[in-house]
Amino acid sequence: MLNVGIVGVTGYAGEELIRILLAHHHIKIAHISARLDKPKAISEMFPKFKHKTELICKDLDIKGINAACDLVFLALPHTVSMDFVPKLLKAGKSVIDLSADYRIREIGVYEQFYNTKHRDKMNIALAVYGLPEIYRAKIKQAKLIANPGCYPTVSILALAPLVALGLIDPDSIIIDAKSGVTGAGRKAAEGFLFSEVNEDFKAYKVNIHQHAPEINQELSSLAGKRLEITFVPHLLPINRGILATIYAKKVKGAKGKAKNLIDLYKKFYKKEPFVRIREEGVYPRLKDVVFTNFCDIGIKDEGENIIIVAAIDNLLKGASGQAVQNMNIMYNFPEYTALL
Amino acid sequence: MLNVGIVGVTGYAGEELIRILLAHHHIKIAHISARLDKPKAISEMFPKFKHKTELICKDLDIKGINAACDLVFLALPHTVSMDFVPKLLKAGKSVIDLSADYRIREIGVYEQFYNTKHRDKMNIALAVYGLPEIYRAKIKQAKLIANPGCYPTVSILALAPLVALGLIDPDSIIIDAKSGVTGAGRKAAEGFLFSEVNEDFKAYKVNIHQHAPEINQELSSLAGKRLEITFVPHLLPINRGILATIYAKKVKGAKGKAKNLIDLYKKFYKKEPFVRIREEGVYPRLKDVVFTNFCDIGIKDEGENIIIVAAIDNLLKGASGQAVQNMNIMYNFPEYTALL
Amino acid sequence: MLNVGIVGVTGYAGEELIRILLAHHHIKIAHISARLDKPKAISEMFPKFKHKTELICKDLDIKGINAACDLVFLALPHTVSMDFVPKLLKAGKSVIDLSADYRIREIGVYEQFYNTKHRDKMNIALAVYGLPEIYRAKIKQAKLIANPGCYPTVSILALAPLVALGLIDPDSIIIDAKSGVTGAGRKAAEGFLFSEVNEDFKAYKVNIHQHAPEINQELSSLAGKRLEITFVPHLLPINRGILATIYAKKVKGAKGKAKNLIDLYKKFYKKEPFVRIREEGVYPRLKDVVFTNFCDIGIKDEGENIIIVAAIDNLLKGASGQAVQNMNIMYNFPEYTALL
Amino acid sequence: MLNVGIVGVTGYAGEELIRILLAHHHIKIAHISARLDKPKAISEMFPKFKHKTELICKDLDIKGINAACDLVFLALPHTVSMDFVPKLLKAGKSVIDLSADYRIREIGVYEQFYNTKHRDKMNIALAVYGLPEIYRAKIKQAKLIANPGCYPTVSILALAPLVALGLIDPDSIIIDAKSGVTGAGRKAAEGFLFSEVNEDFKAYKVNIHQHAPEINQELSSLAGKRLEITFVPHLLPINRGILATIYAKKVKGAKGKAKNLIDLYKKFYKKEPFVRIREEGVYPRLKDVVFTNFCDIGIKDEGENIIIVAAIDNLLKGASGQAVQNMNIMYNFPEYTALL
Repeated sequence: MLNVGIVGVTGYAGEELIRILLAHHHIKIAHISARLDKPKAISEMFPKFKHKTELICKDLDIKGINAACDLVFLALPHTVSMDFVPKLLKAGKSVIDLSADYRIREIGVYEQFYNTKHRDKMNIALAVYGLPEIYRAKIKQAKLIANPGCYPTVSILALAPLVALGLIDPDSIIIDAKSGVTGAGRKAAEGFLFSEVNEDFKAYKVNIHQHAPEINQELSSLAGKRLEITFVPHLLPINRGILATIYAKKVKGAKGKAKNLIDLYKKFYKKEPFVRIREEGVYPRLKDVVFTNFCDIGIKDEGENIIIVAAIDNLLKGASGQAVQNMNIMYNFPEYTALL
Repeated sequence: MLNVGIVGVTGYAGEELIRILLAHHHIKIAHISARLDKPKAISEMFPKFKHKTELICKDLDIKGINAACDLVFLALPHTVSMDFVPKLLKAGKSVIDLSADYRIREIGVYEQFYNTKHRDKMNIALAVYGLPEIYRAKIKQAKLIANPGCYPTVSILALAPLVALGLIDPDSIIIDAKSGVTGAGRKAAEGFLFSEVNEDFKAYKVNIHQHAPEINQELSSLAGKRLEITFVPHLLPINRGILATIYAKKVKGAKGKAKNLIDLYKKFYKKEPFVRIREEGVYPRLKDVVFTNFCDIGIKDEGENIIIVAAIDNLLKGASGQAVQNMNIMYNFPEYTALL
Repeated sequence: MLNVGIVGVTGYAGEELIRILLAHHHIKIAHISARLDKPKAISEMFPKFKHKTELICKDLDIKGINAACDLVFLALPHTVSMDFVPKLLKAGKSVIDLSADYRIREIGVYEQFYNTKHRDKMNIALAVYGLPEIYRAKIKQAKLIANPGCYPTVSILALAPLVALGLIDPDSIIIDAKSGVTGAGRKAAEGFLFSEVNEDFKAYKVNIHQHAPEINQELSSLAGKRLEITFVPHLLPINRGILATIYAKKVKGAKGKAKNLIDLYKKFYKKEPFVRIREEGVYPRLKDVVFTNFCDIGIKDEGENIIIVAAIDNLLKGASGQAVQNMNIMYNFPEYTALL
Repeated sequence: MLNVGIVGVTGYAGEELIRILLAHHHIKIAHISARLDKPKAISEMFPKFKHKTELICKDLDIKGINAACDLVFLALPHTVSMDFVPKLLKAGKSVIDLSADYRIREIGVYEQFYNTKHRDKMNIALAVYGLPEIYRAKIKQAKLIANPGCYPTVSILALAPLVALGLIDPDSIIIDAKSGVTGAGRKAAEGFLFSEVNEDFKAYKVNIHQHAPEINQELSSLAGKRLEITFVPHLLPINRGILATIYAKKVKGAKGKAKNLIDLYKKFYKKEPFVRIREEGVYPRLKDVVFTNFCDIGIKDEGENIIIVAAIDNLLKGASGQAVQNMNIMYNFPEYTALL
């Protein structure tokens, strides 16, 4: 039985990890912790866990984590994870880090977008970007997973077939993404108060969001050359889910290479348990994917242009669900365990 | 032209006061202020006011207020107003205070429920409780209005006819009230984050809410004897509106005194511009009253029991609308000016 | 392996039954049907089931049901179930009926509140009211379960200890209940349109709701004498969940019998897997129970009065979850199977 | 005093027209009607109008309308208006039609997108497209106004300066638009039920929406040549508001013509009372415009690309507010009357 720890359980991602892992038959939650004054039953912090678990949440303490766990999920804020990762790796633990700290391979880009010096540069090269549909083989061998961001997950999956096969002009990509509010985490800020968000809708960080370089990095890698997307995120007055509407222009000759885009996508994702391609004229809606680990994709071929609609649950395929999928791959558990 | 000031414009009540008073033809907004580092156009703070007003919001400063205004609306937090009121009164200004600081006549009760010493006891006796339907004559003469709380406004208006005429057992009153989230103000707190409130519903401060003593004080005054209600407020995942469902038992002989309760209510509120009584079998919903200054009331006579459903907009009849109604009365403007 | 059928899968309760039963290891979904022109993959009707099941939804046909199933869940509208039940029973099938058709033992009361003649009176006496916490022993032996209504489930569980032990005045009970919109089913009606319900809140069927006689029947049975509650339901602008705030007066001598009400509740529900009692001063909120089969209860002892706050997910403990709990009991599966 | 009629008051646009026109000092509401069995007080149909108006809603009847009115607002469904317009014009009335029936100048396009034969082709040429910012001079003289659609209003205003000045590649325009649910009207349909829309988000009519030809027609007219946009509308789980995020590529030499796009927009809309341009780095959100007649626009110049975020209230600037603005222009009332 694998002993698993979850560090940072007071946020939405940590809470979801507990929920998922309580139903996972191949592992044992051996440790949960958060910044706390004194230990507290998780069922007291989240009454929904009453009658389901007796787990006690402890204060953050690297020794305690190392003593109890084989594998550690870090659900900590960006710029905090990098203080824990080297200590865990040194103690021989496997780590799945849900923060952005090990996702960006160019340190300068990370430091610019997250506005801090990186304090564990050495381990960045060691990290595997935890998108199973692209990096499954590497994930199997990994000791450190950089679990992808929510916007990048849906964007990369929606574009990978077209970019990898060179069917679209790499500089024509526009990602108009809309996310539920849990994406912002559980920190008190006026902008995320109910009365501010409810009955409102807005674009934010227009083409300057920190997930753009992450998407650029991965799509460039698939394309085999540098590309730069246009990326505008929006805040939806709902709890969960991201829907991205994506626009791209075909390269000349694309039609010769791919007569039917939907067939192309189906083939590309043929063996993927968590990617579902819609039939012609049908597009995913958030209701289809929330509370699931699926990424659903609909495609419209408009001649010179392509329109793609893709959707995920930002807390599952966009965070904790994908993290568990990565663990399942690393430990040879059936990939869908606790996720279907 | 009356020169009016609004102090504390960054909260929801202050924002609503500006919106209402911009459409008021008998007054001039001569001053607006809030805790600020430096003056700022209100249209920059709230872009919805762009093209509507050039007003500049200043930092809080009693001299500036006194120099510019004849009448001052205080939309400050509880326990803050009482530091401003004596200075304004001393300078001869009229004051409409939207906080709770002058509503409770028993100082000990105020100090217990608001958890602070009262620092301006002298002026409590001077204050008139600004519920026009009960205190219109006194409001006309007042220099200091204690503008009622939102829950008390709807509760007192819903019960006044029955209590004043002695038709119900004063100790049988149960008020089950449900409020939108703007009632909590615009302060960042985890409990009021969108992802916490949305798709949730809960009771809070079960029978220990600070509005209970305010309701008790006014209903006791109408009854001519001390009574104590049962009061359970709930948080609705909507922006605006309070709906209260109220239960009471008739006293013996009540039937003899009042054959038709709906007629009784219609008569009691006959001349009131902002109270509307529903016909039999019809009850108000929030949609009927939000963005209006009305209090709507439906009554069900169940023999020994009475059920009342009453609704207001918590920011209008429950705060800023009522404040303007009070000003209209004080200055002999038509009572509905800027409110219909 | 038990062969299970679900009849009426286009409504919310049927959809939830599929979701729950797909994760149930002791049964096989052998048949699903609804009023349809031609058979259709359930994953086409609800894309969220894609990659999870290949089930085909058929048109309603009693022969097909009987051929495929040992046990049938009827998720049909009220007044429709009673045309199916006798045919299923005759064929020797077990039936769990989620409609109201077999809940009310007094036929006249049923006919008045559901505004139709009952067409299967004979089987009413056979039916067991499927509230496990009260009728577990009978459920074990039952061939026909009348699965309780959503409001009755939360109301009866919240009051059973007090009523069964005779601690409260049976005529003092007031149930102020608030339900999410899925309670109204998936039928197109102007009153349930998004733009009508969103940002609104209202009471409806004030003290004339069809669930009142169901609650009266069961509480009277527990009390050993006829009682009549006051019941006011409200419509919450959320998808799922019911929260009931309940008020009652103690009988004289109640204090002598029960010093601590919370302890009393804990003892009463000691062995129940799906009832959770809150500690003093803590009350359930919907977030604690939605997407679970739990009923959470908080109690406030106010001397002469008692205030109870209780919450369930209307589609789970209030419908489909409870139906599966009943099946688990009938077939000696662990009671929590597929429900935790 | 101008006598005004509103035909079709049971929909959201009709309801808003009543609300706005009750506050309009230069006109009298002389007639309101809808498909009804018998006349009914509007305050009975919409309790929010109680104490505000005694207006009686009549059944639709062309004679009654003609007898009472000088100007008629038609808030009827598409394909219905065209049966009323010729009769009203013949009787010498002025008409502001909120349906799509007179917006599309190419009859074939109308017939394709609205799936019906046009039954009043003659008057299409007479109609003036009621977008004041483009057609003010013609509106002044018009007898028949084709009041623009909601998506076209925000899209055309957001793009007009760039298209009119030839700064962008006309075939590069992508409009990713998001609308609140009132845009769908008040008709009972499963897809617009609260439980279906709430916590969901989706694209619909992907690049086949009937507003696309309306936008194409007007932008082509401004460009002086045929252009075709890409248009993907989405359904937001809110009541009111449209926010459009628009992407376009500059033509070569655009930089030479316009150094600062924000200044360009400010100049273009200099005299417009209802268009507000945001400063650099600031974008409108729905909260800024709902319950107002404003169209707010933010612009981001990205070198070769331009991103525009624009927002309106779909029921006001996108329907009833703009209709009243048109009336104000036609009758030389101050353009902002009843709209600020």
